[in-house]
Amino acid sequence: MARADGRTPDRLRPVKITRNWLDNAEGSVLVEFGGTRVLCAATVQDSVPRWRKGSGLGGWVTAEYAMLPRSTNTRSDRESVRGRIGGRTHEISRLIGRSLRACVDTKALGENTILLDCDVLQADGGTRTAAITGAYVALADAIRWMRKRRMTPGDPLIRSVAAVSVGVVNDVPMLDLCYTEDVAADTDMNVVVTGTGDFVEVQSTAEGTPFDRGQLDRLLDLAVAGCAELSELQRQALA
Amino acid sequence: MARADGRTPDRLRPVKITRNWLDNAEGSVLVEFGGTRVLCAATVQDSVPRWRKGSGLGGWVTAEYAMLPRSTNTRSDRESVRGRIGGRTHEISRLIGRSLRACVDTKALGENTILLDCDVLQADGGTRTAAITGAYVALADAIRWMRKRRMTPGDPLIRSVAAVSVGVVNDVPMLDLCYTEDVAADTDMNVVVTGTGDFVEVQSTAEGTPFDRGQLDRLLDLAVAGCAELSELQRQALA
Amino acid sequence: MARADGRTPDRLRPVKITRNWLDNAEGSVLVEFGGTRVLCAATVQDSVPRWRKGSGLGGWVTAEYAMLPRSTNTRSDRESVRGRIGGRTHEISRLIGRSLRACVDTKALGENTILLDCDVLQADGGTRTAAITGAYVALADAIRWMRKRRMTPGDPLIRSVAAVSVGVVNDVPMLDLCYTEDVAADTDMNVVVTGTGDFVEVQSTAEGTPFDRGQLDRLLDLAVAGCAELSELQRQALA
Amino acid sequence: MARADGRTPDRLRPVKITRNWLDNAEGSVLVEFGGTRVLCAATVQDSVPRWRKGSGLGGWVTAEYAMLPRSTNTRSDRESVRGRIGGRTHEISRLIGRSLRACVDTKALGENTILLDCDVLQADGGTRTAAITGAYVALADAIRWMRKRRMTPGDPLIRSVAAVSVGVVNDVPMLDLCYTEDVAADTDMNVVVTGTGDFVEVQSTAEGTPFDRGQLDRLLDLAVAGCAELSELQRQALA
Amino acid sequence: MARADGRTPDRLRPVKITRNWLDNAEGSVLVEFGGTRVLCAATVQDSVPRWRKGSGLGGWVTAEYAMLPRSTNTRSDRESVRGRIGGRTHEISRLIGRSLRACVDTKALGENTILLDCDVLQADGGTRTAAITGAYVALADAIRWMRKRRMTPGDPLIRSVAAVSVGVVNDVPMLDLCYTEDVAADTDMNVVVTGTGDFVEVQSTAEGTPFDRGQLDRLLDLAVAGCAELSELQRQALA
Amino acid sequence: MARADGRTPDRLRPVKITRNWLDNAEGSVLVEFGGTRVLCAATVQDSVPRWRKGSGLGGWVTAEYAMLPRSTNTRSDRESVRGRIGGRTHEISRLIGRSLRACVDTKALGENTILLDCDVLQADGGTRTAAITGAYVALADAIRWMRKRRMTPGDPLIRSVAAVSVGVVNDVPMLDLCYTEDVAADTDMNVVVTGTGDFVEVQSTAEGTPFDRGQLDRLLDLAVAGCAELSELQRQALA
Repeated sequence: MARADGRTPDRLRPVKITRNWLDNAEGSVLVEFGGTRVLCAATVQDSVPRWRKGSGLGGWVTAEYAMLPRSTNTRSDRESVRGRIGGRTHEISRLIGRSLRACVDTKALGENTILLDCDVLQADGGTRTAAITGAYVALADAIRWMRKRRMTPGDPLIRSVAAVSVGVVNDVPMLDLCYTEDVAADTDMNVVVTGTGDFVEVQSTAEGTPFDRGQLDRLLDLAVAGCAELSELQRQALA
Repeated sequence: MARADGRTPDRLRPVKITRNWLDNAEGSVLVEFGGTRVLCAATVQDSVPRWRKGSGLGGWVTAEYAMLPRSTNTRSDRESVRGRIGGRTHEISRLIGRSLRACVDTKALGENTILLDCDVLQADGGTRTAAITGAYVALADAIRWMRKRRMTPGDPLIRSVAAVSVGVVNDVPMLDLCYTEDVAADTDMNVVVTGTGDFVEVQSTAEGTPFDRGQLDRLLDLAVAGCAELSELQRQALA
Repeated sequence: MARADGRTPDRLRPVKITRNWLDNAEGSVLVEFGGTRVLCAATVQDSVPRWRKGSGLGGWVTAEYAMLPRSTNTRSDRESVRGRIGGRTHEISRLIGRSLRACVDTKALGENTILLDCDVLQADGGTRTAAITGAYVALADAIRWMRKRRMTPGDPLIRSVAAVSVGVVNDVPMLDLCYTEDVAADTDMNVVVTGTGDFVEVQSTAEGTPFDRGQLDRLLDLAVAGCAELSELQRQALA
Repeated sequence: MARADGRTPDRLRPVKITRNWLDNAEGSVLVEFGGTRVLCAATVQDSVPRWRKGSGLGGWVTAEYAMLPRSTNTRSDRESVRGRIGGRTHEISRLIGRSLRACVDTKALGENTILLDCDVLQADGGTRTAAITGAYVALADAIRWMRKRRMTPGDPLIRSVAAVSVGVVNDVPMLDLCYTEDVAADTDMNVVVTGTGDFVEVQSTAEGTPFDRGQLDRLLDLAVAGCAELSELQRQALA
Repeated sequence: MARADGRTPDRLRPVKITRNWLDNAEGSVLVEFGGTRVLCAATVQDSVPRWRKGSGLGGWVTAEYAMLPRSTNTRSDRESVRGRIGGRTHEISRLIGRSLRACVDTKALGENTILLDCDVLQADGGTRTAAITGAYVALADAIRWMRKRRMTPGDPLIRSVAAVSVGVVNDVPMLDLCYTEDVAADTDMNVVVTGTGDFVEVQSTAEGTPFDRGQLDRLLDLAVAGCAELSELQRQALA
Repeated sequence: MARADGRTPDRLRPVKITRNWLDNAEGSVLVEFGGTRVLCAATVQDSVPRWRKGSGLGGWVTAEYAMLPRSTNTRSDRESVRGRIGGRTHEISRLIGRSLRACVDTKALGENTILLDCDVLQADGGTRTAAITGAYVALADAIRWMRKRRMTPGDPLIRSVAAVSVGVVNDVPMLDLCYTEDVAADTDMNVVVTGTGDFVEVQSTAEGTPFDRGQLDRLLDLAVAGCAELSELQRQALA
């Protein structure tokens, strides 16, 4: 009944947030959730996508997620070699972008873009939630960098986000699944929560048996508590 | 406060399920949710993807979603012409596939694949949920076709699924959003529910302000009720 | 000696032209030649391809043809999934575009483009000729739409076109081949004819034994007569 | 009224057929129609495409056509660089393949494939018809090569084909158009004719005004006469 | 005249080789040449490319090189997003593969493949030479892993390789160029040297003025000395 | 010990340079090194790549290399059909481009581009070095063409380049390897030398045993002597 690493069901793995891992990026974070390691780099561009130019909508925040071929236990082919990006990669990149846009007042950002590259160096479950959690810190650093240079008309950072995975494994709802738990989970859920406890994304999937309202509620409780801890760690890292 | 077409917030648009719209497919349905029209075709293949062959896991169910270029108000370029499938298409194809797999006992299916093509002929909001709702009926017909030919070791159809979109528009939680409502929604949610009221997928996104637990609960209530109606319409169509 | 559906060799299948099948396109037609069903949508764009801009050549008319994966008896892979458009698709798109351009005085069209999307929903032979016949009606509707908005410097619609397939099956020249006849044909011909009986395209191919001048002449006679009937049906549909 | 190079309307340009232009191909021809130069190489493969294997249908003949980037007056981008083959290239490759298959009894060929690469080194109109005319000679050489090695169950070469373009320029029907004539032509036609004067392909397109039956007949007369000359030149080259 | 970081012309930057940076790869190294950081992962596959199977040639060693988008000062687009691998990436992947194959007796390797993924996390000049130097250590570890499992018929590791860049900057021949020196270099050279001082690759390019035999000789002297130091560091890391 | 064609180790194959092989290119050369035949076409464009526009850096010289599918003994698939350019093609195109840029003062060229297409019609070893040697002559002709039209602010042609391959076959250093020698070579080297005997590129690869400094020196001697002969042939061709 114990978890692979002896944690209780409501515990996060050891989380580590290392800022400024890269010398040149406007913000960069190596984020670790146990064995999962994601390098998040924020790039500031003084332009916006064509469809947004002069629209009065202000700036843009977007993300690209990818895994190194040997970040996983068995090697995967490179998407650059296959010549196309897979559905899972697309889906996660879109999720990260949406989640980070929730942190930003795009009008206060001015017609600038912040692009968040989230590259998984090692994958042990929860790569997308680690990526969101780390990318928020890189985003905050990139916005500080812009503010120092007076690039933005106002303060674009309006809230923080953190994310965590939860799931039901052997009928036990658990927080922050590692890879072996993720594979065994019946229901799998990724939740993105703001620093004040509201939801930005809830994505819940029955991998096996469909789940009922009670299970959904218990998983949400776990996720909200986990994200509160992660928010605190983000605050400390940025202090 | 009234909706574009005068519905109350908890009403579905007129739904129409036309079976056997194609002469040759093993199952085919033209499903209409108001102005949204999706052609769902089920193809039976007597093989499984290579990674599944001889694995003892049995059959496979998968889906491909696409929109005709002029299904929308302004024309979109064809993905075949662009040479790549976009992230949204990938994401929805994967959602439909996962949802339909929840209906099937793959071992009872034998080493066969059912592929569901969901092509949007006209889009007026809720194309992915209409696709899931229609594809279930096409899937049920394809399984009947297989059973008649004694292709399957058992009865693979273990439950039904239906899906609907819900959202908060001008602070009002609403069921089955049309395109103009979808664009205006603050929170947007797609829910896939079984015939017995359990969840297969819950995907909820804050397009604007993050949402709280109370809003989440009210949206889930609406979705569950809407899916119950859709399940009944599926039952009648298949009778 | 009789045909699959009992027709005499010089008869068309039942033809049905449904205008305004889509709510938003500037012109749209569902055209049916027996079991063949093609959705033709005309999109008006207030620009021309770059190579034509400011050339004094005026507007442009172009077309894209595609088949839904399960429009045929056995499913074909999507060209978007394969990442490339096949030779047959290219060839037919070009044929439709050329044929429709023959209907239009591009100078009178002004620097606008009309794009005709012809999507085969169900294929039972003659999809390209049905597409041309239906696309002409969608084109005429799109031009009416433009004329109402005074978008064009003159009346760009200078003639009508219709198209039909003919072929020699078991030594008998036949009009409007269905799929099983098409497969059995020795010589296969697609002819595009104007409303006044002149030729826009003649494409004749010996699938088996080469054909002589006499056979060519008999097939042309059949095609011209068939296209006269189709022109009349187009006129009625547009009345 | 005279043609660019002083020819009468019913004259071919100087035609030159150089066999064995390559040291290693099983058949190879440099064919020249005036300034148009096409290198045709036949490759023999002791296998057939997968869909044909063990079908009892015997061998296969196919073709690939391409233009060098600077074969034309203004350079075109390479299709390999663009990452996709254009519609025109696809269309001509298919035409050459169909035309050459008419020369071959595939059962007598055995389960072997002959692939004809037709690369345009310099283009001055009529590249597809020069390619077919040259490829026939390369094909005949490749079949001789196979017969010497007793690779084929019978003699697969059952007829010859030659091809020529014709068109109406300033109301005058003309044979074998060079590039400047081709651009000015109102009606453009490519005809593939067997050594005994039957048709394999007739492709006629109105570039401007639609054409009538009389014009069609006069163009066919010119083409048949031109192909008879080309067939004689092929015979001499192979003697 | 001094270098950016105060080194003398014949000095390497600080070099760091961290083994087992990944938990799951059969060999993995994070190699650092100053600010340049490359993650090298060796994957063992119990098969060989198709063209090598059963050829009696034994195993295979190959490599893939890539840069993270923000490894550089200004962000580069992902090759997976562009849908194609650039020329520089191809060229460097091939160079690494050839260099590492020089270390291996492929017959003693048996029909196994070792694939070396070299991903640049941060780029400050000399990424390809750092990659080769690090990949050798990962390769050696992967071979030890195989030997422990008795996967190879013999000992495939027959020599070591290390690599370094040299160049002429402001007329001064220099060892191990950082990015700013690389950009300013007149002649640029990458040299791959075995542990016993022989050459595996010499690639020398005049970026500006062509170079003479004397300059070539001086650069080779520097490179050979630098590689000797690197070989020693590799030996220590593997001890 | 004799070479395939009886040459001594220090002899070039018969070299033939035919200028103006194409009617329309601004410079064109068919270059032959024995059985190797490469068609080099220079295209002048009155613009530069976007990243160079208005940079004050002046014009640009670039190259594209490709092989016809049946230029080799066994046919290769077309890169256009595969949809991507291979690593070897990329690498050689870049080498040719760099080598030719060494001939040109880009400021004196003005904001114009010269693009060199090098298409291998027949391959018998040394295709990249033949391409460079021929492309130089096409480049010189294109610059003459520009100078006649006063397109350039100055004389951009500042030096000539020629290239040759050398290698060690059965322990004997040899000049200008044909295909069978190339395959058997232990060390393979391509050298690009100016008309005054300086180096533009030295690329040396150990295919088998690593090579020592003495072997490197002997190969360079052979290459420099061979390039001097080629430079003289270029001078004669351009006289």
